[in-house]
Amino acid sequence: MARRPTLEFWYEFASTYSYLAAMRIEALAEAAGVAVRWRPFLLGPIFAAQGWTSSPFNLYPAKGRNMWRDLEREAARLGLPPVRRPDPFPQNSLAATRVAVAGADQDWLIPFSKAVYAAEFAEGRSIAEPAAVVAILDGLGLDGTLTLKGASAEANKTRLRVAGEEARSRGIYGAPTFLTDDGELFWGNDRLEQALAWAAGERPGDLR
Amino acid sequence: MARRPTLEFWYEFASTYSYLAAMRIEALAEAAGVAVRWRPFLLGPIFAAQGWTSSPFNLYPAKGRNMWRDLEREAARLGLPPVRRPDPFPQNSLAATRVAVAGADQDWLIPFSKAVYAAEFAEGRSIAEPAAVVAILDGLGLDGTLTLKGASAEANKTRLRVAGEEARSRGIYGAPTFLTDDGELFWGNDRLEQALAWAAGERPGDLR
Repeated sequence: MARRPTLEFWYEFASTYSYLAAMRIEALAEAAGVAVRWRPFLLGPIFAAQGWTSSPFNLYPAKGRNMWRDLEREAARLGLPPVRRPDPFPQNSLAATRVAVAGADQDWLIPFSKAVYAAEFAEGRSIAEPAAVVAILDGLGLDGTLTLKGASAEANKTRLRVAGEEARSRGIYGAPTFLTDDGELFWGNDRLEQALAWAAGERPGDLR
Repeated sequence: MARRPTLEFWYEFASTYSYLAAMRIEALAEAAGVAVRWRPFLLGPIFAAQGWTSSPFNLYPAKGRNMWRDLEREAARLGLPPVRRPDPFPQNSLAATRVAVAGADQDWLIPFSKAVYAAEFAEGRSIAEPAAVVAILDGLGLDGTLTLKGASAEANKTRLRVAGEEARSRGIYGAPTFLTDDGELFWGNDRLEQALAWAAGERPGDLR
């Protein structure tokens, strides 16, 4: 049997549209016959490199106002719970991202990632403090304290930095981003369907 | 018979995603039973007010590279001709926008707007010079020189400025933007379907 095509799903825990993508990618990928590789990363360093000191949704208030309304509408359309905004926004995602990077090859990576997003955007809870991340891990039946400790080891910090460098070198400038086996980049939750179709071998029109 | 609901379509001639929206809004609106009011405006002053001196696609090169590739993919998916990039990008859209504002109540507004976009993004031609705009008008069987002269009158320049102020005061920060009768704002070609559904009275989930 041929190996299933893979789509890399690059996500940032502080990102509202990464949340929407995380909540719907599994079912859509299954239907498309595409495997998904979840790639947590930090968008902060990439934003900082282009001169942004906060989320563009904070830097540009009109854009930010509409993003929250749009998120509310899109969450309703997708059948997700009403959106609750974490305070502050964006949340510091360092501890959660360290854990996710440490869990790259673990079967809890996806449930953990979805639980972080649900806490943050469906319950409006903080995900910034180590204790919040530990509680989410504990809630999944893991040893949260031990897992976070492992994730804070030097080797894992390096792994997270390397992931960030990989993201930038592959052209990523926002989240979520989808990357196909042949390097095609799709940016944004709105492109999830197109990214999966491309990964499955479809090409729009006669494009290569 | 009840008045059809109306969707305002705010577009900027230099904007690549406004091009996609312009080429597909008529058929989709017809199917949704929604009337469309075409609202040309200049995005430059709004970008300038948030500190941008050029298109964000130029200011952020990784974002710009992907936008062009995405435009290529989306044009293919929508059955539009292969994209050709005008040089420079973004094009100075002042003359074309003055004409469109002057044509707000004319039956040539939509054919003119689509012809400008086709020249710019399907043929890669400049739309910046008055002569280019005159040629497009002539091609529609109008008197291009006379029409441009009328559009350059002080009263019409004021009309254009007022449209820009209206755009900003109604929360517009990019193009295309869709505004419903009840003031709901949808940003981006990717939200055209949702905007039309909202205008037609549909609400996602139990949202108000």
